[in-house]
Amino acid sequence: MSKQEIILRIEPGGHVVRVRPGMRLLEAAARAGLIVDTPCGGAGTCGKCRVRFFENAPEPGEADLRLLDPSDIGSGWRLGCQARLEEDAVIEIPQASVFGGYHQIQTTSTAGNNRRAEADIRKQFLTLPPPTLTDDLPDLMRVERALAAETAEPVVLEAPAGVLQFLGKHLRGCAFSGTVTVRGTSLLDFEPGNTVEDAYGLAFDIGTTTLVGVLMHLVSGAEMGVVSDMNPQTVFGDDVVSRIAFASRGAAELSNIRACLLGRLRVMVRQLCEEAGISTQHIYAAAFAGNTTMQHLLVGCDPASLGMMPFVPVFGRGLTLPTEEFNLGIHPHAQARVFPVIGGFVGGDTVAGMLATEVCSMEGPVLLVDIGTNGEIVLVHDGRIRAASTAAGPAFEGARISCGMRAAEGAIEKVWIDADVELGVIGNVTPRGLCGSGLIDVCGQLLKAGMLAPDGRLLTDDALDAGLPPPLRRRMRLDREGKPECVLYENGGRGICLTQQDVREVQLGVGAIRAGISILLKQEGLVPADLAHVLIAGGFGSFIRRDNAQRIGLIPHEVPHEKIRFVGNVALSGAKWAVISGDAWREAEHLARLADHVELSQDPDFALEFAMAMRFPGDMPD
Amino acid sequence: MSKQEIILRIEPGGHVVRVRPGMRLLEAAARAGLIVDTPCGGAGTCGKCRVRFFENAPEPGEADLRLLDPSDIGSGWRLGCQARLEEDAVIEIPQASVFGGYHQIQTTSTAGNNRRAEADIRKQFLTLPPPTLTDDLPDLMRVERALAAETAEPVVLEAPAGVLQFLGKHLRGCAFSGTVTVRGTSLLDFEPGNTVEDAYGLAFDIGTTTLVGVLMHLVSGAEMGVVSDMNPQTVFGDDVVSRIAFASRGAAELSNIRACLLGRLRVMVRQLCEEAGISTQHIYAAAFAGNTTMQHLLVGCDPASLGMMPFVPVFGRGLTLPTEEFNLGIHPHAQARVFPVIGGFVGGDTVAGMLATEVCSMEGPVLLVDIGTNGEIVLVHDGRIRAASTAAGPAFEGARISCGMRAAEGAIEKVWIDADVELGVIGNVTPRGLCGSGLIDVCGQLLKAGMLAPDGRLLTDDALDAGLPPPLRRRMRLDREGKPECVLYENGGRGICLTQQDVREVQLGVGAIRAGISILLKQEGLVPADLAHVLIAGGFGSFIRRDNAQRIGLIPHEVPHEKIRFVGNVALSGAKWAVISGDAWREAEHLARLADHVELSQDPDFALEFAMAMRFPGDMPD
Repeated sequence: MSKQEIILRIEPGGHVVRVRPGMRLLEAAARAGLIVDTPCGGAGTCGKCRVRFFENAPEPGEADLRLLDPSDIGSGWRLGCQARLEEDAVIEIPQASVFGGYHQIQTTSTAGNNRRAEADIRKQFLTLPPPTLTDDLPDLMRVERALAAETAEPVVLEAPAGVLQFLGKHLRGCAFSGTVTVRGTSLLDFEPGNTVEDAYGLAFDIGTTTLVGVLMHLVSGAEMGVVSDMNPQTVFGDDVVSRIAFASRGAAELSNIRACLLGRLRVMVRQLCEEAGISTQHIYAAAFAGNTTMQHLLVGCDPASLGMMPFVPVFGRGLTLPTEEFNLGIHPHAQARVFPVIGGFVGGDTVAGMLATEVCSMEGPVLLVDIGTNGEIVLVHDGRIRAASTAAGPAFEGARISCGMRAAEGAIEKVWIDADVELGVIGNVTPRGLCGSGLIDVCGQLLKAGMLAPDGRLLTDDALDAGLPPPLRRRMRLDREGKPECVLYENGGRGICLTQQDVREVQLGVGAIRAGISILLKQEGLVPADLAHVLIAGGFGSFIRRDNAQRIGLIPHEVPHEKIRFVGNVALSGAKWAVISGDAWREAEHLARLADHVELSQDPDFALEFAMAMRFPGDMPD
Repeated sequence: MSKQEIILRIEPGGHVVRVRPGMRLLEAAARAGLIVDTPCGGAGTCGKCRVRFFENAPEPGEADLRLLDPSDIGSGWRLGCQARLEEDAVIEIPQASVFGGYHQIQTTSTAGNNRRAEADIRKQFLTLPPPTLTDDLPDLMRVERALAAETAEPVVLEAPAGVLQFLGKHLRGCAFSGTVTVRGTSLLDFEPGNTVEDAYGLAFDIGTTTLVGVLMHLVSGAEMGVVSDMNPQTVFGDDVVSRIAFASRGAAELSNIRACLLGRLRVMVRQLCEEAGISTQHIYAAAFAGNTTMQHLLVGCDPASLGMMPFVPVFGRGLTLPTEEFNLGIHPHAQARVFPVIGGFVGGDTVAGMLATEVCSMEGPVLLVDIGTNGEIVLVHDGRIRAASTAAGPAFEGARISCGMRAAEGAIEKVWIDADVELGVIGNVTPRGLCGSGLIDVCGQLLKAGMLAPDGRLLTDDALDAGLPPPLRRRMRLDREGKPECVLYENGGRGICLTQQDVREVQLGVGAIRAGISILLKQEGLVPADLAHVLIAGGFGSFIRRDNAQRIGLIPHEVPHEKIRFVGNVALSGAKWAVISGDAWREAEHLARLADHVELSQDPDFALEFAMAMRFPGDMPD
């Protein structure tokens, strides 16, 4: 009896994921938010994706034997890109195998530096001499003197009234021995005992639909926990346009839509702290990355100007704000960083992604594409950054698709077509719908099988090749209105189908993104083959198959697989980096200001490029 | 029929004071808060105190004729120190005649500088180009760009969330033309229209008993209005000790005693704004000077450590705080400066006084004495500052004196003794009691007349000189308990008397202050005759007569009159300066940190000096 579900535990970190048997290890790791680096595109030729099985290691394959030492193979080392999971396993993914400096590695890439200074938060355990008549220095200056003695540098502190209030009492309550928390020149707290290790920060990706929060240890840079939830603002509309419309109605509506977001964030913070067993009062910092509208709503800024031409944000630079009025229940003098934005639809999430992927440090030209309702496209070339957004529509998030759903349990996320259609379903359960990566897969596979024409028509009956296996032929049918559809899963009812309209939505999404890519490349005088790296970001990014994405034209076919990397939720990675590092935060501002905001609709070629990109390329000649 | 009251109007400023006929002009001007400079001690020899009468100029005296041009005399110019008021008058006191750089002159001594920059608040009228698709800079960066164009320097602004909230709406509501208010790199406001002249600040002297507030125009540095009121915290005790005791009981009491102060300040602010006809929202800055305890209570800081040995303040350096939680009803992003303190009983009022009098710029050694319940003494010599406090008791504020009262209408403030006792009463009304300056006067005059012995005994009957005029002799009587007293005013009841106990209180007060002066001089290796300047500050400072102050020993008799200056409420002057000038504020911190806090009780000679100073010197030989 074959197993229905495999339990994989990943160290370090102890992440546990449940996957279906036969899933590639890379994909299972991505479920845990760990993007294993595959410079060769998963071809098993570079040897960079080494992982170690502590039990149930699969049989070594040809690539393992070629690239790994026999003794390492004996110790359970395998190439992550080749391994498939057939049994429960405990594995280790070394930091070196995680993609170029972010996700887990991001938080530890500054090892050896003083992380406390990096995080702009310093905690120091001090034992002060109690005051006497001959040493009657005021309390706050007494703290300064002791800190200066530790650092051998002069220290001048200021303190909010709330800290001054009972500073004298607290100092005397613990005989002038305890831990100070300092940010820059501000004294944030004095606590009894030695709590220097208790310093945490929050990183949030504020998506239009999904909120993801991570608890970070500011001292070590380690990740302490992750939580995600729906953005409750969806009750005011699914997309940014309807949220802008609601929030712009008046001060009450703005306050209302903001409060519902902040309330949910507060719950997420409490959950993170409870699960990690830490005090909310030891959270001193937070970083927020989101699209321009989400960030405006987060800080309570009327987004009306984002809802009308020329779509101008109120703030461009990153904001450093006291978190007090965010009411997150964390330390009263904690500080929030809200990412800089580039334009009305190229927001802090894009900047955070640029930060996390270090696009400017890579050999160029580099293309970074974040696929979502709003597709953001960044092209880095010769020290210049061009950034644009394009209305890809919600198809790749599963919306406006007849059987669409988000990438949750029951979603068809992979499709293979050979003699018949084979489905990969999240959670290995009965399929409930089709998510973004499944949509790309099915379109790509249908094109390959000749069941979908390059112009987007689903083919039926006589239009199908005579040699098409009957099981496949049977799946192509006409609906009640006589429009073609492809049945992916029969469930007694209407089944899970890809309709002609669904394909049109995909064409629109692909067209928007590809037109954006083309315009940016053209403005730089480049062609797709010039690209050294193509980074695909997005919540589903790690599950798309390169072949199928190229078949539908989402990624130019001229780009070899080894140059394409799926980089996952880089907005979150950037936020994590920004909360633990002041340098990273300043780098984000630098990147945002360096970027030229390209208004695609202003380019005379955009409409033509859009129309051309609506046609699926299918399989291109080599 | 002689006039009962004279109305004097003083320009520039239009101050109106009502005084009794015959009052010296210097004293009348002091009532308006204007301390006319008299380097020669009012002897009519230096010619520095020139004032101009626009009407009813008094007959020129011998000193006028000697020191002033005949044409100037014809135009109404007179020496301020010689003139007495016998008729209603309108006069001008030129800035050059006001004491060395403070009071009115303080606010204008930086003429020619950019006051807006001085005050750290900058308002600028801007007309921005509205955004277009090709110029889609975010709103805040659009403001930066326009400001940078004005200053030809790069500008990077941050903005509180409250400013960002409707910045976009406000900009669009006035077609991108209006006035920005900036402090440092913070954008505080955007308003339609040109309001660059509407920038105000508040200066407050937070006394234990009295609150005085001044509204300042940040652009010109001009004073726009003054208001004073009782400190309502007196319900929790008259002195700092009882307030500390109350506030230290718990968070509720601390909040309570603070709130009652802040509530009164809010009323005073509203009154200032109504009288000046300005909007509270145009107040962007405030400066507060008070003793250490008052400043702790102002910011809501538990003062417990000030109530027990070794009397250590919680904060020493000056505080820069958002005024938002002070709830003064002024601009939400206004900033408050709370003066640095030197020690538990040498507070921000002393530092403000040092700032206002520029003690460190004067030829030294300089002694600054602020006479109050707590006497503060500052000695500046060879670049060093020694500062001490001494418990002078409330006698000089009219408290703990049998017929004592504050310097208000009906208070005897001056006493002359010749053939009989002659009284000067504030408001020229029936006397109601004796205020501090009257107390000093009466003791000095009684000593001179031989009615008070140097050891502090009030003399009666046979102990009095046989030649004493009978009206004076009759005033020295025994009370019901057989203790001597001096009747100053008969009113059918017990009369207004100076009792033996009152004299003892004066002796204690004088002893404390003189002992402090002696210790500081000794520590610097100086004697009184070495002093180049003695500055006497305090609410009544301008009304004490030098002769009498020296007779009772409050001021060393070795100091010639011309070296003694009465400088009035210098704490308020310092606060005024600090609110309009960032440089002044930094200078205050510098002065406070330069000062050595001398704990008088730790000096082995203090007790002896105190005992010696209890004996009145009376008239000393030349």
